[in-house]
Parts: sequence; C-alpha cells; structure tokens
Amino acid sequence: MKVIDLRVRDIRFPTSRSLDGSDAMNPDPDYSAAYIELVTDGETDGHGFTFTIGRGNDICAAAIAALAPYVVGREVDTLDLGEFSRRLTHDSQLRWLGPEKGVMHLAAGAVINAAWDLAARRAGLPLWQYLTSLSPDTIVDCVDWRYLTDALTPAAARDLLADRLPGRAERAEELLAGGYPAYTTSAGWLGYDDAKVTRRALRAQADGFAMVKLKVGADLHDDLRRFTAAREALGPDFPIGIDANQRWGVGEAIGWVSALGHLGPYWIEEPTSPDEILGHAAIRTGLAHAGPGGSPIRVATGEHVHNRIMFKQLLQADAVDVVQIDSARVAGVNENLAILLMAAAFGKPVCPHAGGVGLCELVQHLSFFDYTSVSASLSGRMIEYVDHLHEHFADPVRIVNGRYAAPVAPGFSARMHEESLTRYAFPDGPEWKDV
Amino acid sequence: MKVIDLRVRDIRFPTSRSLDGSDAMNPDPDYSAAYIELVTDGETDGHGFTFTIGRGNDICAAAIAALAPYVVGREVDTLDLGEFSRRLTHDSQLRWLGPEKGVMHLAAGAVINAAWDLAARRAGLPLWQYLTSLSPDTIVDCVDWRYLTDALTPAAARDLLADRLPGRAERAEELLAGGYPAYTTSAGWLGYDDAKVTRRALRAQADGFAMVKLKVGADLHDDLRRFTAAREALGPDFPIGIDANQRWGVGEAIGWVSALGHLGPYWIEEPTSPDEILGHAAIRTGLAHAGPGGSPIRVATGEHVHNRIMFKQLLQADAVDVVQIDSARVAGVNENLAILLMAAAFGKPVCPHAGGVGLCELVQHLSFFDYTSVSASLSGRMIEYVDHLHEHFADPVRIVNGRYAAPVAPGFSARMHEESLTRYAFPDGPEWKDV
Repeated sequence: MKVIDLRVRDIRFPTSRSLDGSDAMNPDPDYSAAYIELVTDGETDGHGFTFTIGRGNDICAAAIAALAPYVVGREVDTLDLGEFSRRLTHDSQLRWLGPEKGVMHLAAGAVINAAWDLAARRAGLPLWQYLTSLSPDTIVDCVDWRYLTDALTPAAARDLLADRLPGRAERAEELLAGGYPAYTTSAGWLGYDDAKVTRRALRAQADGFAMVKLKVGADLHDDLRRFTAAREALGPDFPIGIDANQRWGVGEAIGWVSALGHLGPYWIEEPTSPDEILGHAAIRTGLAHAGPGGSPIRVATGEHVHNRIMFKQLLQADAVDVVQIDSARVAGVNENLAILLMAAAFGKPVCPHAGGVGLCELVQHLSFFDYTSVSASLSGRMIEYVDHLHEHFADPVRIVNGRYAAPVAPGFSARMHEESLTRYAFPDGPEWKDV
Repeated sequence: MKVIDLRVRDIRFPTSRSLDGSDAMNPDPDYSAAYIELVTDGETDGHGFTFTIGRGNDICAAAIAALAPYVVGREVDTLDLGEFSRRLTHDSQLRWLGPEKGVMHLAAGAVINAAWDLAARRAGLPLWQYLTSLSPDTIVDCVDWRYLTDALTPAAARDLLADRLPGRAERAEELLAGGYPAYTTSAGWLGYDDAKVTRRALRAQADGFAMVKLKVGADLHDDLRRFTAAREALGPDFPIGIDANQRWGVGEAIGWVSALGHLGPYWIEEPTSPDEILGHAAIRTGLAHAGPGGSPIRVATGEHVHNRIMFKQLLQADAVDVVQIDSARVAGVNENLAILLMAAAFGKPVCPHAGGVGLCELVQHLSFFDYTSVSASLSGRMIEYVDHLHEHFADPVRIVNGRYAAPVAPGFSARMHEESLTRYAFPDGPEWKDV
C-alpha cells in the first residue's frame, strides 16, 4: 500500500460572528483547519489538519503542499514513523523557515498526525490504544532526541516506559469504563456577559466538569467582577482557572494575578509570551504566595509553545506547574511523545489545550496514552473541553458526566464529514461565497 | 503619496551547485529571496526581501501576500513606522501562526524593511543616516515594548539614546572616512578542501579582515585538522571564529569545543538550537576555562533567534558574549532596534550575521547606526562578510581594506537589478526553466 496523493483543503468556520472563542488576544477568531488527506492506493486513508484561527490558513495549506515530496510515493506498510517525522522536520532547506516553529512546523504536524491516523486505522485501533500497544523501544525511537538529552536520555525514557508496563492493560480498561477528567472553557469567553458566564459555569459544575476556566486580561475591574460572580456561584472550593492568552509582561502578570489571588484561581494560564522561559519562571516565583492564605498560584502554559526544546526548558527552569500540550502546534504525535515523557520525568501533570476545531478530538488520544503508559496518573490532570464544532467530525468526542469517554473507533478521530468540508471550504464553499 | 501595490517575486540562486554556503546543517543551500516591491503612485518605491535557502521561498512569498491589506492603500507621508510594524506583527488571526516567529514573522520583516527603504529614500539618506537623524523619542516609539520591560524600559532606552547624542555626528564622519570592521566566512565553508580553506584564509588576513570563520561540527577529526592548518597559516594571534550551525546538544557542544579549545577559537557560534536560552548559558559556563591557558571561549548566536523576546532572555541569562542580529529573520528594522538597545544596555557587542543573498547589504546599515547612536563603540564589533551574489544589487556593499565602506546611496541597499530578478525568477526564469 502506497500514499498516492496528499490532498489539502482550506476549511474555515465563521465563529467570529458569535464571539465564541473570544479572548484578550484573539477578539474575532474564525476557527479553521488546513485539512489534509493522505490518499492511498488501498482501502485506508489518513486524515489530519493544522488548526488556525482564520487568516493565514491558506499559508499553512501551502506549507503542507511543500511537504508532499516526503509523503507521496511512500510505502505505508514499511513506514517508520520516527524516521518519517524527523525527515519532515529536518529538510535542510525548509528548516531555515523555522527551525521547528511557525507555519512550517504546523504543517509538519498536520502531515505527521495524518500518518498516525493512517497507521492506527491500519491496526484497527483508536490511536491511544495503538500507542499503548507499542513497545518502549518503539516509542523511544519515535522521538527526535536532538537537543533533549541534557534533560532526558533515550535510555531513561525507555526505563520510564518499561516501569509503566505493569498495569497498562488495567488502566486502559479503567479509561474505557470511566473516561478521563475534563474541564470546560465554554463558560468564560471574554465576549460573554456576566449572566451568561455564571449560568454556563453552574451548568458545567452540575455536569461534572472538574474545573471551569475564565478568560482574563483585558480589564482588571471586569476580571474582578466576573471572577467574583463565578466564585460566588460555584462556591469557595470549586476549581476555577484563569487564562490571559499572553496578554501581559512579567511584572504586569504578577501584579494582575495577585489582584485576583484572593479569589483562588486554580491556575493562571498563558500569563505572558509563550517564548518566555525566564519570564514564566519569574512569574511562578512572583505568585508563590499570591493565593488565598499565602498559597501558591499554579502557572500553566503550552498551547503556543512551539516545540519540545521550549517545553524542555520550561521544565528545566521549573517555570510551570502544568504542561499544556497541543495536538497540532508541535510536529504531531512524535513531538508530543517527547513532551509527555519529559513532563513525566520532571513530575509535572499534562493538561492539554483543546477547543478550536478538532483539537479535543485529537488530543484526548494523547492524554489517554499518557495515563496508560507514561505518567500512569490522573492526579491534577484534565483535558480542556469546548463545546463547539464537534458535529463536523465523523468520530466526535463524547463527554459523559463531565469526562471524556474513551474513543473506540480506529484512528485519530481527525476525520471531518465530507459535507462539512464542502460547505466550509474557503473561499468558494457555500458558507463563504456570498460573504 | 500612497502605496498602490505590494509585488512579490520568488527569486532563487543555484548556489548549491558549487557548495558555496555549505555547513553542518545546510549541505546544499540555494540562496533565495522572497523579494517585494512596495509600489507607490509617486516616484519612490520601497524594496525588501525575506532570505531563505531555497525550498519554502514560495511559502514566504504567500505569507507576504497575506500582509498586503496592511500595506496597500497606506499614505506614505503620514506612515508611522512604529505603528505600522506593530500592526503587521499583531494581526489577531495571523498571529496564531507564530506568534512572532517562523514564516509569518519572516514575511513581516520583509515588508517592514521595504517600508524603511521607502522612508529613507524619501528622506534622500542611506538608512543608517536616516536612523541616525531620528530623535531618541522616535526610535523608542518604533519599538514594540511588549514583553521587554522587565529587561529594559522605554524610559531607560530613551536615556541611553540621549546619552549617545554627543559625538553622533563625529562618529558618522568617522564611518564615512574609515568604514566598519568586517570578518569573512568565505574561507571556511564545509564543502571546501583544506588547501582552499587555508589559501582563502591567508588572503582574507592579507586583505585586512578582522577575523576568519570556519564551519565545524560534522566530524571532529576534520575540524581539528582544518583548524590546525588555518591556525598555523594565520599565526597564533589572529582571530579565528568557529561555527557549528546548531549541530550539537549541550553536552556535545561543550565536549567538542573543548577539544578545539587549544587552537584558540575567538568564538563558538550557534553551538546548539537557537531556542536554547538555558542551553547557551550552560555551554558558556562549560567553556569558561576551555580556551588556551584556561581562558574562556566566547559564545555567539542570533541568526536564527526568532524575535526580541528570545534575544532578551539570552541577555538576561548571560548566555552569550556576542549578539548576532540578522536583518531579515526578525520583524525588520523595528525589532532590530529593540535588540540593539537591549544589547547596549547589557553591555554585549553586536556582530551581525550576514551572507546569504543581500544580508550584507541590509545589515551594515544597522551596525553603522549602532555605532553612531546606540553602543557608540567598535570594540569587539565586526560585521560578517561573504563574497557572493553582491553583483545582483543596485547598491552593493563595498569592502575596502577588509572593512565595510559606508553606504551612501539613499535607502536600505535592498534593491536588486531587474535583470537578476528576471533571470533567477523561480521556477520560470531562464536560470531555472531547463533544470
């Protein structure tokens, strides 16, 4: 079986019309996907995508097309997914455009994820179970260890994975029976009024979600008022995370979050630039006594952290309490395996970023695998959930009692309905043609 | 006067055919430019480009085209170049593709540099003199201070610039009379044999260059042999820099450079990933006694450091001895102003990366301005020089006695001959059509 075509489509959903997804830095996103199909000469195809928020989705599509020579013509049966991912990220000329960051890296991630979708489908397993079925050696070989070994060696990663082999099957059964904890961001978009926020937060609490998250950072008085209303509605102990979407510099972050500290935020997410290794460390230190009764406030980041080297440094600098992987920002499953392994080695929980379009569908597989095979823990762990756009997927996430139910269909849950792909094609699909 | 069109062209030079530019990570570059013209309805246009090494140049061209709505229709006479650059880098949807890194940031840099070319031409001054003519307030307003103020505040930057006002005119005269120190990389490409390296190094020394640079990192025995031959030819005191182009991890970098330490490298450039804040700091510490007689070996990096936030951290962590700005990697002149200011505030010399195609032409203006108005020092400072592809430029760099002669034509020296643009157009120009 061979890959005979790499098909790319520019798909955009007009989410800016309802202010869903609005925050301090992203006032009007149109959730979009540079959507790809690895077409084979067999019965199984692979699907994947790069998530963007509108303009520039076409640039990602062009970048994906530039990777076609690495994909088209490859034998599927003998495809080594470690070697494949390293080739995509180390083309000696394309690497100049990063290296390993920005548009070119987003494109590599989409192609690599599609290859994993194809591999899992060929194996007849959902991706998380396919990953769980792989040996420690195979997982280690999937990782690009360049620039990582001062923090974690392949041998240490292999030992860590081997240590988790006992109980792996039982943990998979546990996930199939009871799912994985989730929190929701759907209550607290910045474009929503207070009543809508409180109403939706209460519903999320009643539904069994482990946390709700509020967007902050545009106006401190607004943040105080909204957070106070949510805290009063949800009670003193219910976890409420806050998310500034990179709005602040270091000093401003410490000051602003300290002013909200008495309300007991569970974490502050993206307080500053995702490039800030030292800045996140300084903010974490600055918030070490800013919570109720002088307790620390956790620092979380990752959705815009562009590769494993940056995650490595956030861990080395003890700059974060929570590692927020994203399924489609870094170079796909392989690079996320590296990040999961490093987070486990440094003892930090992974709470993935999701939402957008299709990010929940993808990233759940990585957290499920993290539990079966890497961290083997659910403590302090939960997957972000946003209740938009799942209807476009052939195998959408299922939330049961505020938890992610285990995906059971073969593959990476990346596939969109053909009808959606046609309708939201940009700029010529029916949803856009007359705008 | 208005900008009426943003024209983009994919220009590629087949440099891989001669191994010019070959190094440990870039074995076969085709030096390329996503070349743009800001066409106005007046007599002056603005030119600029993104430098790449071949494949992917078309992706940069697509990214530049996506910025056209921010440019076309703008009034030139009232264009505020600070506001202009911040808009280009903070489009709320395009920002998702970085933020401020990779393809989208390269594209923003090209457009911003073209706007500066236009502004300097309108003023009838070479860019470095145009910058020198601006007030400290204007320079400070050109910078995007977001994420910088924990290291340098606008007020401190203004004070620094005001302190340098005395003597500014004299330093400009000094540059016009005697130029700016240069070093050359043209001797030591990895694809050259030992005899060619030694011959070219001796010629560079005789020509008056302040340093020659050798590429290292592919094979330690080869590096020892080549470096030893160059050291013996050039004498014990002549500065020889070495450049690994990101080849190593932290431990490997310390070991490899220590093994070359007795040969007295002036600096080790790009020992590891450009994303490594902590890694560069560790390498610098690890090389603190690795030179002859236990002297330190300087660490240099920057050509791939993607924005001012990363440079800030390299300075904060005391991770580098030499700051290597690049004219076309970050978001153009504005972001480089921020980096020059921070380097001066932290007391580190700036020795720009150049070469490729047109990078010497551009970056000389920034170093000349650094001397007149920011650092006001030539100590430990020199601009990289590579002797390729200058013939394609209307206002090429001039090297006199191993120094950059001051550019005197109005603008940013970015303009290529129309004949070159036609001949090297990819894929339809005569140079490429039949390959």
